[in-house]
Amino acid sequence: MKVDGKHYRTISVRDGGAAVEVIDQTRLPHEFTLVRLITLDDAVRAIADMIVRGAPLIGATGAHGLALALREDATDDGARRAADRLIATRPTAVNLRWAVEEVYATAMGLPPGDRAAAALRRAEEICDEDVAMCAAIGEYGKGILREIASKHHAGRVDVLTHCNAGWLATVDYGTALAPIYKAHDAGIPVHVWVDETRPRNQGASLTAWELLQHGVPHTVIADNAGGHLMQHGNVDVCIVGSDRTTRTGDVCNKIGTYLKALAAHDNLIPFYAALPGTTIDWALTDGVAGIPIEERSEDEVRFMRGRVAGGDCVTVEILAPGCKAANPGFDVTPARLITGIITERGVAKATAASLARLYPEMAKPLIK
Amino acid sequence: MKVDGKHYRTISVRDGGAAVEVIDQTRLPHEFTLVRLITLDDAVRAIADMIVRGAPLIGATGAHGLALALREDATDDGARRAADRLIATRPTAVNLRWAVEEVYATAMGLPPGDRAAAALRRAEEICDEDVAMCAAIGEYGKGILREIASKHHAGRVDVLTHCNAGWLATVDYGTALAPIYKAHDAGIPVHVWVDETRPRNQGASLTAWELLQHGVPHTVIADNAGGHLMQHGNVDVCIVGSDRTTRTGDVCNKIGTYLKALAAHDNLIPFYAALPGTTIDWALTDGVAGIPIEERSEDEVRFMRGRVAGGDCVTVEILAPGCKAANPGFDVTPARLITGIITERGVAKATAASLARLYPEMAKPLIK
Repeated sequence: MKVDGKHYRTISVRDGGAAVEVIDQTRLPHEFTLVRLITLDDAVRAIADMIVRGAPLIGATGAHGLALALREDATDDGARRAADRLIATRPTAVNLRWAVEEVYATAMGLPPGDRAAAALRRAEEICDEDVAMCAAIGEYGKGILREIASKHHAGRVDVLTHCNAGWLATVDYGTALAPIYKAHDAGIPVHVWVDETRPRNQGASLTAWELLQHGVPHTVIADNAGGHLMQHGNVDVCIVGSDRTTRTGDVCNKIGTYLKALAAHDNLIPFYAALPGTTIDWALTDGVAGIPIEERSEDEVRFMRGRVAGGDCVTVEILAPGCKAANPGFDVTPARLITGIITERGVAKATAASLARLYPEMAKPLIK
Repeated sequence: MKVDGKHYRTISVRDGGAAVEVIDQTRLPHEFTLVRLITLDDAVRAIADMIVRGAPLIGATGAHGLALALREDATDDGARRAADRLIATRPTAVNLRWAVEEVYATAMGLPPGDRAAAALRRAEEICDEDVAMCAAIGEYGKGILREIASKHHAGRVDVLTHCNAGWLATVDYGTALAPIYKAHDAGIPVHVWVDETRPRNQGASLTAWELLQHGVPHTVIADNAGGHLMQHGNVDVCIVGSDRTTRTGDVCNKIGTYLKALAAHDNLIPFYAALPGTTIDWALTDGVAGIPIEERSEDEVRFMRGRVAGGDCVTVEILAPGCKAANPGFDVTPARLITGIITERGVAKATAASLARLYPEMAKPLIK
């Protein structure tokens, strides 16, 4: 998407493959800084220090990281060590492991002299596949927004989103934000209510910045405000992402998503999750009972980062010393609260049968 | 309640009536500072600069402010000017106007030489009446917590609260926190989940500090986390305050209250509002349609105050310049989501009939 009027992906090959360029997301929204990764160490640091974040982008960075590593050392031992180091940076990131092993398998079938070039090609393919998947989610979601717009006699479509499932989390377009970008670019008048998304503020820091840069009208709100806006007819539709989805349509997403789904349900407002089929866990049928929720550091609640007047970014403590905090990272929204699931293959109902129709090759082995 | 083991009220007479002492709430939770108000100007500034906040405490400060003013100038003109200045500091604060006019009426029936002393006595009575009202709310609410505790074979009662309806907002005890303090002091094992309460962070800054000082176990959570905790059985009961209540039991309280009520309802968890009868607006039957919601400055979303390592408090900007924000201050929780309303006269259902039985003198004129 666009930054200062220029098109970017979150990760791009530079210098004929000698480098990849990423956006330093730790400095957003206050500074837009591009960082060149040249070595394996650079790629490891970029993932570990969260210069890049979002499962698809972490995977893409891992893939490119291995390609960079093979330029330094294409031996069997070197390649395995590099792959293992990359995977270890974020051990729970399933997509990272998948992408690194894809590149590894592609390269290791070849003689050492050909491995780096083949790895680069596969890494670029992985990035292009991610863009295509997000674009497809965007097109299907755009259809929903177009239909809502057609029912309004005039005026904008108000979309509420939570956290950042935008292009910064992927290679381009995003998941939950892809329908919004596609609709905006097609001239459908969208406006986005952006949940701040405490405690890490991904909405305020990343989603609002993305939308601002691409020129999409938006307004940041405290996470507390969405229900009130829905009660008063100011939200037409909610679209969120998903970190993990059960085959029955329960959605595990950033903490607070469930509360917005309850409010949407109470006010008869459609609530969609936009996600690639790869996030569906076909072994799970009950998200609340079956998905373990990561308990994150209380420091994310205790401290906040921002810019003081004049320019420097600092971290401030907002709790009194001695006050305890807790910080569950995700929650599960039961399928009964979800209107539909927007995937790269189309829009499903949040039911086992409807998801199975879109992914028969995944669902069939489960049917006795 | 207690601070560092010593009992305080939020406002206390000092030097035989020549001064009143308040806690500077703008410096909490990082500094506990007592401020002496000696002149009318001091009292006006304390209210206008939000050194004191919370409707009952603002009223008490206004009452004492007029008593202080009458020590300087007890003429008819001086008294009226002082009363008008105090009322103008927070023009929408109904309780402030009431308290100042009470003291004014008491004093003006007397010769000028007796006015200051009579005003001081009436201001002290207003404070004592507020304490008695909060204590009564606390006793009725304690009964609810005791009953929940009796159903547990062992272990604590987990209470979730939103914003600050604690003793800092009143003269002592608070409204929503009064049942918690009364239960804790009676040996009932309570633990409080404290919603951070963005954007002004009253939960993190004031409620958590209050509970810490009084020794009540508590944990601060992001406003997003409550639904997840309820889904997993970690909340036994919710208690919130109310800024305005319809005679049918709709509750207007700090933005975000409605979302927690939805989650409590979805998980079969009792949800109570604790409030003095003076917050009931007997003219209103539909809170969502009838209560205008204050739209506050977007700066409360844009900026956050905290302490940098080393000690100084600073304000940081958390949004990118150019990103817009919106900031509705309150929302309305419909009566259908509320289990009960805890008042100084007992616990009512959130229905017109049940509230009318507690306040027949208010309800009777409405019955045709």
